[in-house]
Amino acid sequence: MEKTTPLSELGEFGLIKELTDDIQIKNSSTIVGVGDDCAVLERNKTTFTITSSDTLMQGIHFDLMYQPLKHLGYKSIAVNLSDIYAMNGQAKQVLINLAIGNRFSVEAIKEIYDGMKLAAEKYGVDIVGGDITSSYAGLGISITAIGEVDKKKIVYRSGAKENDLIVVSGDLGGAYMGLQLLEREKEVFKSNPQAQPEFEGKDYLLERQLKPEARKDIVELLEKMELIPTSMIDISDGLASELLHICQASNVGAAIYDEKIPIDPDTYHTAVDFNLDPYTSALNGGEDYELLFTIKQEDYDKVKGNPHLSVIGHITDANNGVYMMTKEGQAVPIEAQGWNHFREEE
Amino acid sequence: MEKTTPLSELGEFGLIKELTDDIQIKNSSTIVGVGDDCAVLERNKTTFTITSSDTLMQGIHFDLMYQPLKHLGYKSIAVNLSDIYAMNGQAKQVLINLAIGNRFSVEAIKEIYDGMKLAAEKYGVDIVGGDITSSYAGLGISITAIGEVDKKKIVYRSGAKENDLIVVSGDLGGAYMGLQLLEREKEVFKSNPQAQPEFEGKDYLLERQLKPEARKDIVELLEKMELIPTSMIDISDGLASELLHICQASNVGAAIYDEKIPIDPDTYHTAVDFNLDPYTSALNGGEDYELLFTIKQEDYDKVKGNPHLSVIGHITDANNGVYMMTKEGQAVPIEAQGWNHFREEE
Repeated sequence: MEKTTPLSELGEFGLIKELTDDIQIKNSSTIVGVGDDCAVLERNKTTFTITSSDTLMQGIHFDLMYQPLKHLGYKSIAVNLSDIYAMNGQAKQVLINLAIGNRFSVEAIKEIYDGMKLAAEKYGVDIVGGDITSSYAGLGISITAIGEVDKKKIVYRSGAKENDLIVVSGDLGGAYMGLQLLEREKEVFKSNPQAQPEFEGKDYLLERQLKPEARKDIVELLEKMELIPTSMIDISDGLASELLHICQASNVGAAIYDEKIPIDPDTYHTAVDFNLDPYTSALNGGEDYELLFTIKQEDYDKVKGNPHLSVIGHITDANNGVYMMTKEGQAVPIEAQGWNHFREEE
Repeated sequence: MEKTTPLSELGEFGLIKELTDDIQIKNSSTIVGVGDDCAVLERNKTTFTITSSDTLMQGIHFDLMYQPLKHLGYKSIAVNLSDIYAMNGQAKQVLINLAIGNRFSVEAIKEIYDGMKLAAEKYGVDIVGGDITSSYAGLGISITAIGEVDKKKIVYRSGAKENDLIVVSGDLGGAYMGLQLLEREKEVFKSNPQAQPEFEGKDYLLERQLKPEARKDIVELLEKMELIPTSMIDISDGLASELLHICQASNVGAAIYDEKIPIDPDTYHTAVDFNLDPYTSALNGGEDYELLFTIKQEDYDKVKGNPHLSVIGHITDANNGVYMMTKEGQAVPIEAQGWNHFREEE
């Protein structure tokens, strides 16, 4: 019998590496292929085209029991644009592929599309194509985002250098705590459909999970500050996983400080209520869609005191590894604990 | 209760129209949005970027009972590139999104990817990104194709003019007859798993269905002939459906002649064996991925006698409607009978 390897053995990133490792670029217009937030294509003298594509599957990425369709549409666009912003680019167009089960009505699909249009409006992108097909099994959404970036301003994952400062936008762990709340109320509802959900005062966390925003504003802020990061990535799978991507691509190590990680008080208190460590939630919880980037030391004054940005650590030599330093003075090695969809399924 | 409309009431094209009718283009770099084979984006002084995205879902677009995984990978790339060629463009890059159930092994996914790489090699495109995720519902493949086209040579669906000649590449109906053969043998196999499939001499038809090619060679032929069609589309849903798209986009009518429709002898005889009308199969059978285009009368000499091209009729005034003229002298109105995935599911 032929050898068969379960997908869970490799995980998403291992599988992608296995599949794409031997790809040779043939076209001169392909500047960068697989391996960053976006592919980078030659456009004209001064700009690159950047593009990225992602899929959201019902039951894996969203649960229609608590995910409003309109928010789902909005989120599907926002999370794809996030990859364009992670290259320091401007998002311009999206292609939308929907695979829908025939239990969905025209009105339901319109709800999803209304959310997509709302996001397109908000982020200033055009919906330019895609397709709609049926599916035997629930809803699948694939979005391709297309953008442009000034050749002098493009930021890759691979540019971090020793002593660079590590910066993160917004706050972390909120989307993960929102998910915990929703999952808890789902269980309550399953055992007692009359129960009212206990979401009072939790609006921020629910919105972080159900209707996240992409940080276009941070790209604009960087432009205004005349600050070009040395490396950047968006936080979709959790700070730990993304920091490791930057370190791997840049061949460097990193030290971050737990007390510097920005955590909203709502996230903090909710984590405590759930008997979860807030720092672990911020480090490993996914779907925050904040930007993680590195800057030169000399640019510190530009970000200092900015309420949208937190300096959480610095880049080290690769031999030093990747660590989180705790308040208690411990150095905890950072390992990838982001989502492994294939493992979750087991 | 709120009104709910079943998807089957609108069909794919009706639904797309309903969802996208009110979209306003905001970016100057968006030249054409929804409505042609590709979206058209500004690239540089002399070229446009063109892009298209499509999804293939297990159970809807392919049946793993008879679709070899490697061919499936090959086909998923080829059918997406077909949209680039339908704009008279050159395909350059693809993004690949895979959604896979955990019953698939790493080896199975590699088979699919090997087919994709083979197609990428053959058509000279680079695989530059995408993602892989799990799915509760079998296999889903979304491909985004990206290409370039000289601004002076781009061909839209909307350029057909009265008296233009209607031309089709290759031959039609083969993929549909291949599907009939595969479905028949599947039924035989279900009732008797020991039965050997009867595919002798049917290689051509099976290949048309399982491993179709995109007509890059026709775009190159047009270039060599110095012939720019007035309109063009690829035949994915059947000649009838695509001709109607051209007529609608160009606001014209059309007359085609059944005896001019190119049908391979294998297709013809197999249709007869199945008690199907070969012309109807050629007209309404999908997935041929040939190019359907219109040319000015004065360009007739360029295509005359070319073994890859058949002149099947001419464009008329819109008021004349869209007709097929039979050998017997009857004028049969052409109506869309392409795939309605939502109807099939019922």
